[in-house]
Amino acid sequence: MRPYQKYSGAGKAKNRQRLKERQVCQNRNKIVDNLEKVILEAGLKDGMTISFHHHFRNGDYVVNMVLDAVAKLGIKDLVLVPSSLTDIHAPIIEHIKNGVVRRIESSGIRGTLAAAISDGLMDIPVIIRSHGGRARAISCGEIHIDVAFLGVPSCDAYGNANGYSRENVAASACGSLGYAKVDAQYADHVVLITDNLIEYPNVPFGIPQSQVHYIVKVDKIGDPNGIMSGATRFTKNPRDLLIARHAADVIEASGYFEDGFSMQTGSGGASLATTRFLKDKMIAKNIRAGFALGGITGQIVSLHEEGLIRKLLDVQSFDLKAVESLKNNRYHYQIDASYYANPDNEGSAVNQLDIVVLSALEIDLDFNVNVITGSDGVIRGASGGHSDTAAGASVTVVVAPLIRGRMPTILDKVNTIVTPGHTVDILVTDQGIAVNPLREDLAYNLKAAKLPVSSIEELKAKADRVVGKPEPIKVEDKIVGIVNYRDGSVIDVIRQVKKER
Amino acid sequence: MRPYQKYSGAGKAKNRQRLKERQVCQNRNKIVDNLEKVILEAGLKDGMTISFHHHFRNGDYVVNMVLDAVAKLGIKDLVLVPSSLTDIHAPIIEHIKNGVVRRIESSGIRGTLAAAISDGLMDIPVIIRSHGGRARAISCGEIHIDVAFLGVPSCDAYGNANGYSRENVAASACGSLGYAKVDAQYADHVVLITDNLIEYPNVPFGIPQSQVHYIVKVDKIGDPNGIMSGATRFTKNPRDLLIARHAADVIEASGYFEDGFSMQTGSGGASLATTRFLKDKMIAKNIRAGFALGGITGQIVSLHEEGLIRKLLDVQSFDLKAVESLKNNRYHYQIDASYYANPDNEGSAVNQLDIVVLSALEIDLDFNVNVITGSDGVIRGASGGHSDTAAGASVTVVVAPLIRGRMPTILDKVNTIVTPGHTVDILVTDQGIAVNPLREDLAYNLKAAKLPVSSIEELKAKADRVVGKPEPIKVEDKIVGIVNYRDGSVIDVIRQVKKER
Repeated sequence: MRPYQKYSGAGKAKNRQRLKERQVCQNRNKIVDNLEKVILEAGLKDGMTISFHHHFRNGDYVVNMVLDAVAKLGIKDLVLVPSSLTDIHAPIIEHIKNGVVRRIESSGIRGTLAAAISDGLMDIPVIIRSHGGRARAISCGEIHIDVAFLGVPSCDAYGNANGYSRENVAASACGSLGYAKVDAQYADHVVLITDNLIEYPNVPFGIPQSQVHYIVKVDKIGDPNGIMSGATRFTKNPRDLLIARHAADVIEASGYFEDGFSMQTGSGGASLATTRFLKDKMIAKNIRAGFALGGITGQIVSLHEEGLIRKLLDVQSFDLKAVESLKNNRYHYQIDASYYANPDNEGSAVNQLDIVVLSALEIDLDFNVNVITGSDGVIRGASGGHSDTAAGASVTVVVAPLIRGRMPTILDKVNTIVTPGHTVDILVTDQGIAVNPLREDLAYNLKAAKLPVSSIEELKAKADRVVGKPEPIKVEDKIVGIVNYRDGSVIDVIRQVKKER
Repeated sequence: MRPYQKYSGAGKAKNRQRLKERQVCQNRNKIVDNLEKVILEAGLKDGMTISFHHHFRNGDYVVNMVLDAVAKLGIKDLVLVPSSLTDIHAPIIEHIKNGVVRRIESSGIRGTLAAAISDGLMDIPVIIRSHGGRARAISCGEIHIDVAFLGVPSCDAYGNANGYSRENVAASACGSLGYAKVDAQYADHVVLITDNLIEYPNVPFGIPQSQVHYIVKVDKIGDPNGIMSGATRFTKNPRDLLIARHAADVIEASGYFEDGFSMQTGSGGASLATTRFLKDKMIAKNIRAGFALGGITGQIVSLHEEGLIRKLLDVQSFDLKAVESLKNNRYHYQIDASYYANPDNEGSAVNQLDIVVLSALEIDLDFNVNVITGSDGVIRGASGGHSDTAAGASVTVVVAPLIRGRMPTILDKVNTIVTPGHTVDILVTDQGIAVNPLREDLAYNLKAAKLPVSSIEELKAKADRVVGKPEPIKVEDKIVGIVNYRDGSVIDVIRQVKKER
């Protein structure tokens, strides 16, 4: 016990300012002039760990902006722990070469940066985590974030921030701040970067003022059109649509398609397109879904607005229609990555999923799935919520073309395991369906519905007859990536690809 | 680093159940049959600390229900850390006598329990904390909650809970769960007690599934009519209304009454009634408030619905109209006690207050305020958000009658300091106004508006001429209560009252 001291502690200097001038926290205005200044004020030093979110996906300006400022200040050896990295982050290559960035932990890496890392650019392997695994690692201290630099499409001067604004049309709206929310909760220093400062209090907020140390206003934090890029684009590819149609048939026959069912569709054309075929079946059978989870798309929003899906739990808004819906629809609800998929908390939403539809780059005879390295062994994807939802859902449907380019999708062993086979229940391809032998119940249901079910070995043989068995990927000894399972264990490693000479 | 083991960790036993049956968490159904069972499952043992919230105020059934079950199980020496206790909790007296309850930490204590404690019932003094001080103490570990027993008016089987429900008419709706949210976040074990189990997912939620370990369904958790009792009732007392009118005049003249201003009215008739007089002034001057904070009343809601207050930040709903509004009004926003008033986080909402109107049982010549002990020295009130908002607001207006019964309100020294005088700016009574000499700016403004400003000494003399100087309260040596300031320091103690013989 210590005695109260007059003028000590919180009551010291009573703030007599009017509201509009009150941006102070512990005698410090939260708003800082520019990035370089805030990096110094937050105490960023060589070797520290900094985090970012990827809600802007390929439209993100924040990572490059911050790293340029860091580089200018001569700070080195940083550990980057963004929720994911995409094509737009290629400039990181230079920062790695110059020693600004020493290590990376991320859900995914794409584009030239990914190719360079696969080619041995970094001395220390990158660590790949699922979204749930990252939330777990941050909340248990396995990842300690010194400074989080979080781009926010709306923010008041005290730090209440969101991925949209009910006050105005946020120029860089990204919808849910699901991944960023975890960083804000646990980082030692939280820096918000915004292009849309609005009046206090910015409610609803995704990130509360009570977790925010600094705010920097910049011209532009991102390009919302970049949100809907690549993996979340609406497909017109006829083969993807065929697979999606098959996936909807499988869901209908699974035994889990009943009123109040729940679903998630992961990124990737065929996966996202499944929704549109499911819709007809829902109307025909008068079945409404209880909720949809995860990355929310405009298609899912349409079903919600038509009354076919009652509620949306949104950890990441996949397109601008979803962004708009989060702002306007009362049952379109923002959740954080830990609530979504952290395997260590007292209940994450993935555990309530009936059905998830997920993509795959490769799948093997044990149903192990690779979504991180391409058929050439080069990093090109993201772990995302793949292994989280596969483990949580009652029925995990993986959709993929039987043959991609000249390469078969089904292998004896996948090049890189991201999601273990015992959590994957059904493979749906354009040329047939295979059910994991662990799930006789599902095989029985699908066969009863006269769906074209065969063994995964038969499907593999079918592809091999067309394109032959692929040459194994030649790799060096050097490990360039470590793939963590959602519980933090190492499920696989990625090796440097051997260059042809 | 540890290798992934098949069938280990989170992926072990894939849940094949349908959604409606999925209430399991780590292979355990969260729903437990009854209170006694859940107390055992949560591992409650002698000497542990348990918490409750007081959102039902005098309609709460949960505290008594849980303590009865605890007593039946023979568990002893518990430390109770509810957010507050009221008249309805008189049965705790027996539990103290029987050794079930050894110690209490609370914002307030009222009724026969408070009288008994003032009379020396307990061996160890109770600790009184403000709402912000409690949130601080819990989040820094000063209070370690072993098991939180939280009554929730709506809840799904996985633990998403709220103080109302958008799905149905919650029989025991209490509105905001602002205090309970902090307990849920930090307690080792969180037990929800509900009388309204609804379909998953119960969005919006005040408490997320990810923080909830157990759920018990009971017949009834509280009486919503008890919410609006005593300190939050709508006054018809003419003297209270006169004081409220003066307070509105003071606010108008303060220099802070301008478009976008922010306000809070604490519990107590005159304080809450200030709103109705302020309304006319707002309309006349075309001034809208930016937000209202704290305990939200139906009056505040009316102003919100009429467009006079843009947003409501609600840590506690003071009546049923406020409860209904939180459910329906999009800018009526639920906040937790830490966001509201924790002095140690990076920015609590009280720091953004322009004006707060607060009650007092006693005030002294240094403007120190007592809201915990009556003129007889007996505990009868609550610290609440008094010292938090006083410290945060630009203008702290304390309202009180100059004479209460035959006792003067202004003393040389208050019997118990809850809120230190340097954070209190203006005293408004039915017979005059005094301004803290620290705030010459305010004195200048009020005098310019020709308000009846005098020194607090003059006001005191006026009362003393009518009722004389009160006899000092006679006390024993024994300390029955310790009053903590919001920063955790001890600002005063409460001694056992000497009985007349």
